[in-house]
Amino acid sequence: MTPSPPTSSTGIRFGTAYYWEYQRAPDLKRDLDLMAEARIDTLRVGESVWSTWEPRDGEFDPGWLTPVLDGAHERGMRVLLGTPTYAVPPWLQRKHPELAVVRADGRRVPWGARQEADFTSPTFLRYAERVIRQVIGAHGGHPAVLGIQLDNEPGLHLMHNEPVFERFKAWLARRYGDVGRLNEEWGLAYWSHRLTCWDELWRPEGNTTPSYDLAWRRFQAELTTEFIAWQAGIVRELVPGDRELTTCLAYQRPALHDVELSRHLTVTSGNAYYLPQDALAGDSPVEITWFASGPAALLQAADRMYASKKQRFWVTETNAGSIAGSQLNLPPYDGQLRQAAWALVARGAEMISYWHWNTLPYGAETYWGGILGHAMQPGRVHDEVAALGAELERAAEDVTGLTPDTDVGFLYSHDSRWALTFQPPLTPDGRNPDPDSYERILATFYQGAVDAGLQVGFVSQVKRLPVLVAPALYCLTDETAAELEAYVRGGGHLIMTFRTGYADEEARARTEIAPGPLRALAGVRYLEYSTLLRPVPLHGLGLEDVARHWADGLELEGAEPLAHYDHHHFGRWPAITRHRVGEGTVTYVGTLPGRKLTAELFRHGKPTGLVATRSQQVTVHSAVNARGERLWFAHNWSDRESTATLTAQATEVTGRREPLQPGPLRLAPFDIRVVK
Amino acid sequence: MTPSPPTSSTGIRFGTAYYWEYQRAPDLKRDLDLMAEARIDTLRVGESVWSTWEPRDGEFDPGWLTPVLDGAHERGMRVLLGTPTYAVPPWLQRKHPELAVVRADGRRVPWGARQEADFTSPTFLRYAERVIRQVIGAHGGHPAVLGIQLDNEPGLHLMHNEPVFERFKAWLARRYGDVGRLNEEWGLAYWSHRLTCWDELWRPEGNTTPSYDLAWRRFQAELTTEFIAWQAGIVRELVPGDRELTTCLAYQRPALHDVELSRHLTVTSGNAYYLPQDALAGDSPVEITWFASGPAALLQAADRMYASKKQRFWVTETNAGSIAGSQLNLPPYDGQLRQAAWALVARGAEMISYWHWNTLPYGAETYWGGILGHAMQPGRVHDEVAALGAELERAAEDVTGLTPDTDVGFLYSHDSRWALTFQPPLTPDGRNPDPDSYERILATFYQGAVDAGLQVGFVSQVKRLPVLVAPALYCLTDETAAELEAYVRGGGHLIMTFRTGYADEEARARTEIAPGPLRALAGVRYLEYSTLLRPVPLHGLGLEDVARHWADGLELEGAEPLAHYDHHHFGRWPAITRHRVGEGTVTYVGTLPGRKLTAELFRHGKPTGLVATRSQQVTVHSAVNARGERLWFAHNWSDRESTATLTAQATEVTGRREPLQPGPLRLAPFDIRVVK
Amino acid sequence: MTPSPPTSSTGIRFGTAYYWEYQRAPDLKRDLDLMAEARIDTLRVGESVWSTWEPRDGEFDPGWLTPVLDGAHERGMRVLLGTPTYAVPPWLQRKHPELAVVRADGRRVPWGARQEADFTSPTFLRYAERVIRQVIGAHGGHPAVLGIQLDNEPGLHLMHNEPVFERFKAWLARRYGDVGRLNEEWGLAYWSHRLTCWDELWRPEGNTTPSYDLAWRRFQAELTTEFIAWQAGIVRELVPGDRELTTCLAYQRPALHDVELSRHLTVTSGNAYYLPQDALAGDSPVEITWFASGPAALLQAADRMYASKKQRFWVTETNAGSIAGSQLNLPPYDGQLRQAAWALVARGAEMISYWHWNTLPYGAETYWGGILGHAMQPGRVHDEVAALGAELERAAEDVTGLTPDTDVGFLYSHDSRWALTFQPPLTPDGRNPDPDSYERILATFYQGAVDAGLQVGFVSQVKRLPVLVAPALYCLTDETAAELEAYVRGGGHLIMTFRTGYADEEARARTEIAPGPLRALAGVRYLEYSTLLRPVPLHGLGLEDVARHWADGLELEGAEPLAHYDHHHFGRWPAITRHRVGEGTVTYVGTLPGRKLTAELFRHGKPTGLVATRSQQVTVHSAVNARGERLWFAHNWSDRESTATLTAQATEVTGRREPLQPGPLRLAPFDIRVVK
Repeated sequence: MTPSPPTSSTGIRFGTAYYWEYQRAPDLKRDLDLMAEARIDTLRVGESVWSTWEPRDGEFDPGWLTPVLDGAHERGMRVLLGTPTYAVPPWLQRKHPELAVVRADGRRVPWGARQEADFTSPTFLRYAERVIRQVIGAHGGHPAVLGIQLDNEPGLHLMHNEPVFERFKAWLARRYGDVGRLNEEWGLAYWSHRLTCWDELWRPEGNTTPSYDLAWRRFQAELTTEFIAWQAGIVRELVPGDRELTTCLAYQRPALHDVELSRHLTVTSGNAYYLPQDALAGDSPVEITWFASGPAALLQAADRMYASKKQRFWVTETNAGSIAGSQLNLPPYDGQLRQAAWALVARGAEMISYWHWNTLPYGAETYWGGILGHAMQPGRVHDEVAALGAELERAAEDVTGLTPDTDVGFLYSHDSRWALTFQPPLTPDGRNPDPDSYERILATFYQGAVDAGLQVGFVSQVKRLPVLVAPALYCLTDETAAELEAYVRGGGHLIMTFRTGYADEEARARTEIAPGPLRALAGVRYLEYSTLLRPVPLHGLGLEDVARHWADGLELEGAEPLAHYDHHHFGRWPAITRHRVGEGTVTYVGTLPGRKLTAELFRHGKPTGLVATRSQQVTVHSAVNARGERLWFAHNWSDRESTATLTAQATEVTGRREPLQPGPLRLAPFDIRVVK
Repeated sequence: MTPSPPTSSTGIRFGTAYYWEYQRAPDLKRDLDLMAEARIDTLRVGESVWSTWEPRDGEFDPGWLTPVLDGAHERGMRVLLGTPTYAVPPWLQRKHPELAVVRADGRRVPWGARQEADFTSPTFLRYAERVIRQVIGAHGGHPAVLGIQLDNEPGLHLMHNEPVFERFKAWLARRYGDVGRLNEEWGLAYWSHRLTCWDELWRPEGNTTPSYDLAWRRFQAELTTEFIAWQAGIVRELVPGDRELTTCLAYQRPALHDVELSRHLTVTSGNAYYLPQDALAGDSPVEITWFASGPAALLQAADRMYASKKQRFWVTETNAGSIAGSQLNLPPYDGQLRQAAWALVARGAEMISYWHWNTLPYGAETYWGGILGHAMQPGRVHDEVAALGAELERAAEDVTGLTPDTDVGFLYSHDSRWALTFQPPLTPDGRNPDPDSYERILATFYQGAVDAGLQVGFVSQVKRLPVLVAPALYCLTDETAAELEAYVRGGGHLIMTFRTGYADEEARARTEIAPGPLRALAGVRYLEYSTLLRPVPLHGLGLEDVARHWADGLELEGAEPLAHYDHHHFGRWPAITRHRVGEGTVTYVGTLPGRKLTAELFRHGKPTGLVATRSQQVTVHSAVNARGERLWFAHNWSDRESTATLTAQATEVTGRREPLQPGPLRLAPFDIRVVK
Repeated sequence: MTPSPPTSSTGIRFGTAYYWEYQRAPDLKRDLDLMAEARIDTLRVGESVWSTWEPRDGEFDPGWLTPVLDGAHERGMRVLLGTPTYAVPPWLQRKHPELAVVRADGRRVPWGARQEADFTSPTFLRYAERVIRQVIGAHGGHPAVLGIQLDNEPGLHLMHNEPVFERFKAWLARRYGDVGRLNEEWGLAYWSHRLTCWDELWRPEGNTTPSYDLAWRRFQAELTTEFIAWQAGIVRELVPGDRELTTCLAYQRPALHDVELSRHLTVTSGNAYYLPQDALAGDSPVEITWFASGPAALLQAADRMYASKKQRFWVTETNAGSIAGSQLNLPPYDGQLRQAAWALVARGAEMISYWHWNTLPYGAETYWGGILGHAMQPGRVHDEVAALGAELERAAEDVTGLTPDTDVGFLYSHDSRWALTFQPPLTPDGRNPDPDSYERILATFYQGAVDAGLQVGFVSQVKRLPVLVAPALYCLTDETAAELEAYVRGGGHLIMTFRTGYADEEARARTEIAPGPLRALAGVRYLEYSTLLRPVPLHGLGLEDVARHWADGLELEGAEPLAHYDHHHFGRWPAITRHRVGEGTVTYVGTLPGRKLTAELFRHGKPTGLVATRSQQVTVHSAVNARGERLWFAHNWSDRESTATLTAQATEVTGRREPLQPGPLRLAPFDIRVVK
């Protein structure tokens, strides 16, 4: 066997999940040859079939994968091999029914899907370690193996198994020392909740205390991180040092802290699913779902992945034919696969891997479309993938080592997201809470940045960037507040929204005047705030728009007003203010503005780059490659032709790779052009 | 006592359910005399009161019914006597709480209604047999008894009791032989579901495997059939040979295969409930509920009943005053009771029996309206029933032995319905699956046939009819595919829709190019399909309409296109095609067209009969009576006068029974006229 | 210590709930001084902190409250001290997990909030008595103590604990004697539900029998009453005779009969929460929620409280800053707090006590706004409260002992409400039942009375008032029917609606011709009725409006028609009729009319009082004070200026307290003026 290319190869890895073991009439050679034609150079395999790796308790059969690995190797392909721990085989379910995850209401998650097991159980870990050692021991050294995926999409459940709850009490005891301290910190005089010993702690099911809920979620995310770190430790023993360690993250998982977890990986991988067809047009409204809806949401998914380790990442799963259930089949329009892939590349993706090679004839995901459909025939989707593969291959030198540019940083706070899931500020219908409030506020401002032509980087700590956004940073520590102050005093431009700074690290409402430790910095204070049950007219920054969902009763303490409500009651308070602090500014946004005005907040006279656009349907991104060249990516997300402007001479990276003169840059419907 | 008339009597049986035992101030003579005035000649009794038949364990009191039977007999009425097994008495519930049906989630169905018992339990069957023998033994030979109803509306629950699940494993073992075969057939490598022995099979609660779900539903329907067959065997021992055996079927029950079950009956009986008032107008949209909404749905209910045994049937329950709960009281408009009854008669009903004689003062069905209301006074509904009874009596000779005409056959597939309940192709809201997808697709095409003036017969196997429709025939066997081919080659006209032929008998997506074994016959293929989140303009057959919910990406392989999408993406594929095969044709409908275009598919130059109509509010049906005469039934379903056309001289069967000249046939609002 | 003022003091008690024990940085003096500035003279304390009173099993610490009591006393404030039994401490939860309330489905209410305990348990009562004796024993005699609140908002759950169910069977046995009688009364022949002994009674979970459900709800309300009475007995032993005994009632609780319970109190207290801002405008539609929406709903809440004991009442909780969860923050507009308080005063409130002094930084109610917000700073809400406090103080002599006037009585029937919760007549969407049907019908007519300028008094028995309304009096006893007849024959004007008189005291549909015992009195009968799935045009009384939800098929038997449906079917029946009976009249309303026509039914040429209005945004109320003077309260609920008319010279009680001349009485937006 010839040695495989090194991990940090040239160009973009182009891959697919490949489940040879699921096929009814498998034909490995046909599949691998078709893949090679499409320039697919990376396979993702083996993560879902514990019962194939270990058909019976202690009987292992790792050999089935060898032909796949050999076949890949012969074609110069690399393989990402998964540990199968997220799918527990029936023999283990039957032997240890107590492994089933227990839900908040005390009921077990029924067997029949996957991810039903309490992965903290020593029993589970014993079996998991055994199968990991067998699978990775057998294949981890194969030259085709690029890296190991540790489990899959972890953090699906908040687990309420009794041993997990016992660990939670011990976790609390370590953090708080004694129950007296907990009584104080969590305010347990309220409603007679004061504990006299840890064993009096009530179960999460009935909990109504916000600090408890936040602790529970933090603890659950730690369990997930611990589990992946544990796998990483075992696998590291078994594979050569150049093998990557990763896992496929589904960022919406409730028990996941992607940044903490990624510390234990060599590269972050994640899902980048999106709703194609009309939902991928630039005028889609903000929707919060497990898949992206609209270009901004797709870009946001990429930026979140980059942020997990502050480095380039792998997209281990993205749409091929369609996603989700039998009732939602939406294969992409012509060009959309290419658009999505280039958008991910522009934002730092080092691998684009489709889920999956072929649509499965059975199982829960029968209607999750592959590159090939049920008929195993190359069709339109395969042809699009193959054309894209060829294009990426041609552009390989240009896109090697791309680092995405960042104009504006968004502070992402897991604590705030969790706290506002428990106590959401928004209501979709004037009655019920919106558990996605945090993500909705964030996505609204993210969309604004995109509309203003800015590129976003997510940060979990204050960072020196021209503009920093703190969307609904509810659980604000005094430390972060001080860092924000230093940032602004150092010339930074901070945009903060309602709810930022309102609570502390225990999700308690602060008892200082709001916005608490940011009051002086923002130059505003408020003693009250109101839900807006209906949009209220809003004017400012030369625009007419609406204020939605919320209005802080802002009083100026040094800031100047930027926008006002047209309303007999709310009109007394400014809706948006700006405070100059030395060279820096703080923009305080006391409401959720409409799309126009939100975008206007981000228009800061950013210098025009190589490609410029004024259309909401067109986005422009830039990134710098390993040679130090800046590439520009112009997407036309609509079904109508559009035009961007080339401000200087350039070379096209996509298409004919010819020199282009300054002037209009034509973009066909669903087109993407990359120039440098 | 004088002998009763034979079962196959002249005319239509006109009946009511009669619960003497529920009345607060019973007056048998008053009731029976009032019934006789209304020409009611059939009573349905006794099926709900096990605790009256057997007040205590082993103490029987069958005598309470004798006055009813004698009173009926004296008036020449016949009685349908029910076995009371669907309503378990409290003493048995308390003695054997383990009889309670267990739901998918492991919780017992609470006692307090009816049909809460696992009827497969040997314990239950022992008690059930005892009470059946007592009740039917006591009364089955009474000359008034027309027949025995075995249980009532069976198949309400999918039963998850442990012994039922154990039987399921044995059932699987018989069908598949060993778990290896099951692993292969169901694709259990997927998500590590491979079994090593039958006892590792997971419970249905958590199941995500389509083939498992289909097997579970088939098995549950078999249990229901087995139970009714078991009762039939016992009852047959106890009654004279001329007594009918039937049960009242509620066709929407999840655990019911009406055709299989009806093999054990001498006559099919069923419910024909419908929403009256405006919902019975001809322009109601298709809705899938347990009651019919719109004339087409009512006709469909009748055609399903005819199909169960391919013979005339009994309507054991249909609306009198109103149906359903306290919040939905909709007594029919004047004329609607008559319309509904004649529609059922036109489609083969041999009995029209109202549920029920009087509205009950207590119990779950306090607001299920009887012929008499709570006040036990004849009112408008009683008067309508009485007038109808007189009309049916006058028409008795004409309507004896009516066999409904059939222009078009619809292939009904329980397997496809069950499979598409688990993996529905449609979504009502762009997100969630529509578990009624199969019924919705079927009903849309049924409505089209009605709109085109055609009469439908449901078939479970391919049959020689001028037109055959295969709506969403998802689970298509190779055998049925071959029969369809033979049908078309023999000159038949087949209309098939999207999803037909896509899967096999295990509900697996076929791995051939779609539509699989029908590809050559249809002259089209497709490699992809898409959900339509919004209706797309559709033109064809000279009409402008919309395409809804679905679009197959049809490629022509011999067929000609009939309709096209107006859409930048979907426009490349035809929406509807037609393929000529010898003398036959295959129309492939790759979407769910709007109502106009669906109807147009059925307009085949059917020769005009005695009565013609062009109004969507008017339907015309025909049937041939025992004398070989063809009767024509013209309904005006609207609140406005309408007109049909009489194409030849005729005699009126309803109304004044006078000769009619060719020309306009006036139809008053909510009118029905029958001519021959 | 100087003695406190007597309970029946001058003016209106102005109070707040005060939870010193919840504060993170308590400052008792600051709080009490700020309260005194705002004229707050009553504190409500201690009802939620059993775990503070008794930190460990049997260890009591009542002393923590003493500074609050002393501080209040020093400032002449009085204190309402609560027994803490509604909030069970964790040590008791852990020691006796079996105390948790069991829901209908058999699952325990999880610990973590409050009111989770079965308060009928002897175990619970033993602990409850002990803590009551400690708390009230320690402080009940303190001179600041005005009275004792017994538990809090009781009746939250229908409790399905096994011992409760056992008591229910015994309760039934006492009422019905033997199961045979129960079988008869409840109609248990139906669906084989006949019992042979009490232990065969099925659990409520599966119950479908209306009479059973009504009995279960009556029984549950009795348990609540019994519990409060039991506490009253203990507390009476412990406190001086002049201390008031009360509890805070939440009227929407399912297990509450406010009139029966209040027999054991010396004064009724209750919640008067309302949605402020636009929802408190006069044109809000009727909505049924736990808080009032619209002025009529707020007034209705007050009138219900007055009716509980037919005497003046305490509002122990009403909005300060905002109510409910984190997603619904609606602080009142300027003036609305004042409006609400004066409305409650006008209708008999002797105390207005806000919930609560300061918004809490933690706990379930973190977003339930206090007079002070999280920052503990006086803001707009505090200023409004203080201004109101001063105004009430100035008006103290005038508002002492106010008895509200009543123009029209509304018969409130708990039985009817419960029965129509189980069998609701209305549907919001054409399919599902509306469990709030009773309250919705009632509120519609209450709104009509308000729109017509009438003042309502709720009565639970027939009472001599000029007008009496019987809205949906479904469970009508023969005795009440006779009283209504006597009332009308004595010159009364009765307005009765559809469903009134339809059932009996067992919630059985009556088997007489409807409206049963009121038929002769109403001069109408009906044999049928219909749901109206869509509004039907309605004309009568000179107005065009709509009929909604329901139509009785009224036939005249002496009454004259007042309004008619415009409909091909329903048009045959009058919608509203009036029957003259001697000097009295009976108006029968067979539908739910629109707002205009409903109001018109109440316009009876009521003599104009001191203040008159014709605007729907303005209400006028009157009440007589201890000096026998009649005060007039004019509210302008809108954000626009409005005008009422002063018909004679008057003195202003609010504002500048100057003499006013007859003529226009100007009302600013959100204004309230009181004159005499």
